[in-house]
Amino acid sequence: MLEEEKVFKDPVHRYVHVQDEVIWDLINTREMQRLRRIRQLGTSFYTFHGAEHSRFSHSLGVYEITRKIISQFERNGFSDWPTEERLLCLCAALLHDIGHGPFSHSIESAFDTDHEEWTCRMLREQTEVNQVLSKVSADFPKKVEQVICKTYPKEIVVSLISSQLDADRMDYILRDAYHTGVNYGTYDLERMIRVLRPHRGHVVVKESGMHAVEAYLMSRYQMHWQVYFHPVTRSSEIILRKMFERVKYLYLNGYAFDFFPHPLGALIENRIESKEYLLLDESFMQMSMMQWTHERDEILADLCDRFLHRRLFKYSTMELLDERKIRNMRQQVVQAGYDPQYYLEVDFPADLSYDVYRAGETDGKIPIYLWNDRGKLIEISKKSDIIRSISGVQMGTHHLYYPEGMSFI
Amino acid sequence: MLEEEKVFKDPVHRYVHVQDEVIWDLINTREMQRLRRIRQLGTSFYTFHGAEHSRFSHSLGVYEITRKIISQFERNGFSDWPTEERLLCLCAALLHDIGHGPFSHSIESAFDTDHEEWTCRMLREQTEVNQVLSKVSADFPKKVEQVICKTYPKEIVVSLISSQLDADRMDYILRDAYHTGVNYGTYDLERMIRVLRPHRGHVVVKESGMHAVEAYLMSRYQMHWQVYFHPVTRSSEIILRKMFERVKYLYLNGYAFDFFPHPLGALIENRIESKEYLLLDESFMQMSMMQWTHERDEILADLCDRFLHRRLFKYSTMELLDERKIRNMRQQVVQAGYDPQYYLEVDFPADLSYDVYRAGETDGKIPIYLWNDRGKLIEISKKSDIIRSISGVQMGTHHLYYPEGMSFI
Amino acid sequence: MLEEEKVFKDPVHRYVHVQDEVIWDLINTREMQRLRRIRQLGTSFYTFHGAEHSRFSHSLGVYEITRKIISQFERNGFSDWPTEERLLCLCAALLHDIGHGPFSHSIESAFDTDHEEWTCRMLREQTEVNQVLSKVSADFPKKVEQVICKTYPKEIVVSLISSQLDADRMDYILRDAYHTGVNYGTYDLERMIRVLRPHRGHVVVKESGMHAVEAYLMSRYQMHWQVYFHPVTRSSEIILRKMFERVKYLYLNGYAFDFFPHPLGALIENRIESKEYLLLDESFMQMSMMQWTHERDEILADLCDRFLHRRLFKYSTMELLDERKIRNMRQQVVQAGYDPQYYLEVDFPADLSYDVYRAGETDGKIPIYLWNDRGKLIEISKKSDIIRSISGVQMGTHHLYYPEGMSFI
Amino acid sequence: MLEEEKVFKDPVHRYVHVQDEVIWDLINTREMQRLRRIRQLGTSFYTFHGAEHSRFSHSLGVYEITRKIISQFERNGFSDWPTEERLLCLCAALLHDIGHGPFSHSIESAFDTDHEEWTCRMLREQTEVNQVLSKVSADFPKKVEQVICKTYPKEIVVSLISSQLDADRMDYILRDAYHTGVNYGTYDLERMIRVLRPHRGHVVVKESGMHAVEAYLMSRYQMHWQVYFHPVTRSSEIILRKMFERVKYLYLNGYAFDFFPHPLGALIENRIESKEYLLLDESFMQMSMMQWTHERDEILADLCDRFLHRRLFKYSTMELLDERKIRNMRQQVVQAGYDPQYYLEVDFPADLSYDVYRAGETDGKIPIYLWNDRGKLIEISKKSDIIRSISGVQMGTHHLYYPEGMSFI
Repeated sequence: MLEEEKVFKDPVHRYVHVQDEVIWDLINTREMQRLRRIRQLGTSFYTFHGAEHSRFSHSLGVYEITRKIISQFERNGFSDWPTEERLLCLCAALLHDIGHGPFSHSIESAFDTDHEEWTCRMLREQTEVNQVLSKVSADFPKKVEQVICKTYPKEIVVSLISSQLDADRMDYILRDAYHTGVNYGTYDLERMIRVLRPHRGHVVVKESGMHAVEAYLMSRYQMHWQVYFHPVTRSSEIILRKMFERVKYLYLNGYAFDFFPHPLGALIENRIESKEYLLLDESFMQMSMMQWTHERDEILADLCDRFLHRRLFKYSTMELLDERKIRNMRQQVVQAGYDPQYYLEVDFPADLSYDVYRAGETDGKIPIYLWNDRGKLIEISKKSDIIRSISGVQMGTHHLYYPEGMSFI
Repeated sequence: MLEEEKVFKDPVHRYVHVQDEVIWDLINTREMQRLRRIRQLGTSFYTFHGAEHSRFSHSLGVYEITRKIISQFERNGFSDWPTEERLLCLCAALLHDIGHGPFSHSIESAFDTDHEEWTCRMLREQTEVNQVLSKVSADFPKKVEQVICKTYPKEIVVSLISSQLDADRMDYILRDAYHTGVNYGTYDLERMIRVLRPHRGHVVVKESGMHAVEAYLMSRYQMHWQVYFHPVTRSSEIILRKMFERVKYLYLNGYAFDFFPHPLGALIENRIESKEYLLLDESFMQMSMMQWTHERDEILADLCDRFLHRRLFKYSTMELLDERKIRNMRQQVVQAGYDPQYYLEVDFPADLSYDVYRAGETDGKIPIYLWNDRGKLIEISKKSDIIRSISGVQMGTHHLYYPEGMSFI
Repeated sequence: MLEEEKVFKDPVHRYVHVQDEVIWDLINTREMQRLRRIRQLGTSFYTFHGAEHSRFSHSLGVYEITRKIISQFERNGFSDWPTEERLLCLCAALLHDIGHGPFSHSIESAFDTDHEEWTCRMLREQTEVNQVLSKVSADFPKKVEQVICKTYPKEIVVSLISSQLDADRMDYILRDAYHTGVNYGTYDLERMIRVLRPHRGHVVVKESGMHAVEAYLMSRYQMHWQVYFHPVTRSSEIILRKMFERVKYLYLNGYAFDFFPHPLGALIENRIESKEYLLLDESFMQMSMMQWTHERDEILADLCDRFLHRRLFKYSTMELLDERKIRNMRQQVVQAGYDPQYYLEVDFPADLSYDVYRAGETDGKIPIYLWNDRGKLIEISKKSDIIRSISGVQMGTHHLYYPEGMSFI
Repeated sequence: MLEEEKVFKDPVHRYVHVQDEVIWDLINTREMQRLRRIRQLGTSFYTFHGAEHSRFSHSLGVYEITRKIISQFERNGFSDWPTEERLLCLCAALLHDIGHGPFSHSIESAFDTDHEEWTCRMLREQTEVNQVLSKVSADFPKKVEQVICKTYPKEIVVSLISSQLDADRMDYILRDAYHTGVNYGTYDLERMIRVLRPHRGHVVVKESGMHAVEAYLMSRYQMHWQVYFHPVTRSSEIILRKMFERVKYLYLNGYAFDFFPHPLGALIENRIESKEYLLLDESFMQMSMMQWTHERDEILADLCDRFLHRRLFKYSTMELLDERKIRNMRQQVVQAGYDPQYYLEVDFPADLSYDVYRAGETDGKIPIYLWNDRGKLIEISKKSDIIRSISGVQMGTHHLYYPEGMSFI
């Protein structure tokens, strides 16, 4: 423990409290500091100009919420909480995003990388984070990795970091709302924390807390439709992905780039080392794109220019996939001299990994259970009309993205 | 005018309203979009992790406040307001920061550049901004330049953008408070706007609005001491400045950099062109520093590593300049193998351009006048004890900055 | 119009703006001032101690929201808005609650009074309000009455004051949330106002505003379950109603009260005059109850003591009406020496007049329509899963209320 | 201790936490419940319509802040804090306002009562509060009385409840700001609490917390001038005081009131008993005034009507006392048929008991000391220019109050 508690001023939680030296040392590692240069919401800042916050801020927030939940469990002396796992939880909470690369959504789909795998490598390989964790005990880095990768035997520990009620989502809902300015529908974090109960290896919710969970899931629902799936954000992500695909294509076909900084080649070939991974951040990508606006390859130069200067693709909504309209648009794109592989995209937001709530188990995420005073558990959507209505529903409409100047008919 | 008003969701003002096509077009220029890649508070994010907002957000905010002030003047039909200057004011408000480079405070002192000069060049030379403004009228870009450079003949127009009560400060106080999380002492913007009056070529304050101005100046005072002068922020700025000085020194002495992207040389030699200026943003600087962490020059590599990974200089407070302690520290620095030119700094925050309030005229900024119903003007510090107490006071203490591991005795 | 706009500082809307002399004069009538002595949320302050705000504050808020909606319509020049009805709307908004008596919910059910009827009488009879309105035109008081009583021929005017999207609810959701402290799930009023459109005699919602309406209805839903139907509030209302019933019973049976202020008898007999109605407020009732704690009639004295000193009835939840448990409780109540007519109550919150949303027309309240750019209208629950799920659902469970010391088995 | 912590939803502190059965029982006493019927800010609701909150809410808030301060002391294990005094402090915090009568400021000056004396009597005599406290120990009520009356030997205990940095002020600044809507200049309570230190029998402030104290005192300063000394509030208080003076005059001269409820006579004669004191609340006063609007005595009827229906006195500002203008106004008042004893008042707000800060000891209230790491104490205004500027300054101007229709010349 630190001699004196340290605090960070945080706009969402007011203060983040650090009591353990390990946590303090982890925050000061190069790997954690790198997250300051990766935005939490990717390209959303082109839709909501305030959304410029980083994964570093969010990581502190997830840590702080986890700390508060555990503190609630300990203060109340709940016997189902394994008190010896406190530090493990806190470390996993802080480090859960450490493998995220720049503009992850777009880059992962173009280059076939995976941030969860990277997170594990950062914990396991020769990194500062690994060094700090190893001081706790030789197997501590491994344990943190298991928690983050959901293979740790005590499910309750995993579920604080990754479940339908995890600290990760609890923080990002509030933080993204705060920075985008869409912060009306936020929920009462303090109350949410108070109704959580450790129960036979899981975190469940006191029955009287049902409305608190409803409010929380409603916030999530609102954020999905107002922020995460916003078609302008999707447009900028599509351009970015197309741009990365072009870079990969050019690289694999021996194109001579004027500017091609280390370790970009290794990234494309998926043979990067963890030391080099440190160099990869959104500054690296944005500066490269800026230099590429002068490349001879017109597609690359144009896509970079579009992204950096917010000349985004237009979009049209299709209630149902309309093949005729897509064909028509493809013709227009070709006639205007664009390569449709890079300048046309059909998108359906529900492809995204975000989901509001599922009543059944998915990806190892168990549903939310209410726990009544007679000790019975009931899955929440059985009790709440509101939650049942949003549970597992595939919402969203198809959008067609294309350069300005085309007409959607 | 736009057919339909457009809005941006803004976390500080809730919404930014755009009614003029010129404003809309200016926002979409490459020069304005570049401000998304320059942080409003430079290196403050190392002290307050939430301070990651950009000059782009701030510029929209200054525009919005100016729009609200003018709208108040027009709604009330105040005859001292020159209604024909509305669009000019709005454009100047939006564009006032367009010349800011990356990490301006540090880079300007190291490379002898000047963001105000750059703003003027961006308005005058062959830029997209110049093109949009020229559509209003041939002399419109010139007029905007005059307003921003404070040479426009109608002082009231200038004073909305640059005075003790300008929209620039009104926005940054609120916005910086919001993002740092230090948002308790904020003031009532709506009330401030309501007590402003155009009066014989100046903006003055209704006498009954004195307490509103007091609250506003108190906010400023608090922000100076809690945020702008924070010694941790100063430490990161000092490292950055030293790093830029080292780059300049190496460049001028013919050092062969492994990584030296265009147009860095032109920047150091102060012969950059406005097209090239677009490339300069904080991504450019951060990525370069990241690559430089592998340079052979140890001083450069170390300073870059310190900055990017937040291994900042420690600091000690000296109530008065204490030459003996400085000499002692210099010896320690040398003994530890550091070059004191890069690893030791005496700093006094009041050197900074920020000031809370001055009762007399300075830099062409006139003081704040109260206007009573009998038509008399009185300078506000004559009436308010609080404001008198902070007016022109040189506060602050000296700090000594040095690498960790030294002792201040 | 007033020479200079007047403002009231309002904790919810920041400022309430008054531009018309009629509005100013109405606010200063005795009838409006009386609403300062009637709480907006009746007995909810016993559950949420902050809920001490009055119907006066709420009335100003409804006026302000109405003003903002109309101002949006006028600024955009929507042709379906009858601009000549502005003042009529504003007056009706301000005055819509003027007939509310003290603790309306409880007193109306005990004494068979009706606050809507009283509102009409206050507008029609010899009151200050009538006098101010008559200055506008001879038939103006009648018109205001028609708007409030929903018989005014132009439905759009009525619907601003009384519909599923009226200014009344828009204000109370925010205001009650603010004062109870349950203010997380509030909605974005500014956005709600911006998506409203006048359309062929109704107020409808721009299709792209669907999520704004969802957020608003979710707020309402949350407020119903967290605040309006709270069983502790219901308990205090039940005691109050029982107490009023006892007073009526005693009065009609010739009981000699030690304290029986004018015009209580007339109130019970429902033959009160509008001048006397001014005397009736929550001070009148609370003080009478306080004096009655010393009455000889034990039931009256006890119920008054329970109410004033918050010795509320306990309650138990029954998922379904359980006649056996009710009978059992009745026996216990009798054995403990209580009269079950006054000391036992089965309650079902959905009896209350509040409802979240109905997709069909009820009580003349039409549902909410979305309006798309092709001019088509669609009822919102057809489009929104969330809203469909809460539409018209009869939620709630039965509660049994009884004095402390009984056991529910 | 309670088996499970109980919480109250509070709009200012989000939640008030109750852990001790004694506290829970005290909250439920008749004496505490009575405070629900006494407004925190007296007649300020006539200036700020939101200011309708009660002393009950405030009392819970003072308790909660005290709880947080003590909890901070205990968590950090500061040895200068006498841990055995925790419950005593909490009780004193909760009960400190229990003797407040209705509209205390006005009634005390008219009837020569004293709420502090009443608080002591409520603790000492046969009350429910006394009964609950006695269960802790026989001398516990006496100790609570000593703390509130500032005679308890351990000054640190007293100073949490009554000093320049007491929990009383810390709560009311925030709460009054919240309800009036003047809530921009609020301070960071969490930070204030964190910089407090127990030190040799006093509460002092960590030197690095100076700016936190500045912000807090600035909030106080702002609240004084914007809220507490507002001339409209003063006008309503003056009318109320004149009204009470008239009641007293009439009573002592044998006037036969139509309405004169028990125990008003005893109150005027200052021979009331603590049981009867329970009957006295603002409902009692408001209802009596309402009945008195029909009294034959015209002065009494008129003053009651003015107060209840907000027909307040007008006011004019005099920079200095201007005897000529006062004489002139007196003549006008007389000519208009008013008795100047009741219809004319010269007022100077600094007479009020509120003060922002005093650098010396006054009324046993010691100044605020900063405590540096070398263990030295320094009075804060010696270090802070801002605080020095507001310390002990007698601000304010004279106002003259009179009925409408007079002219101030």
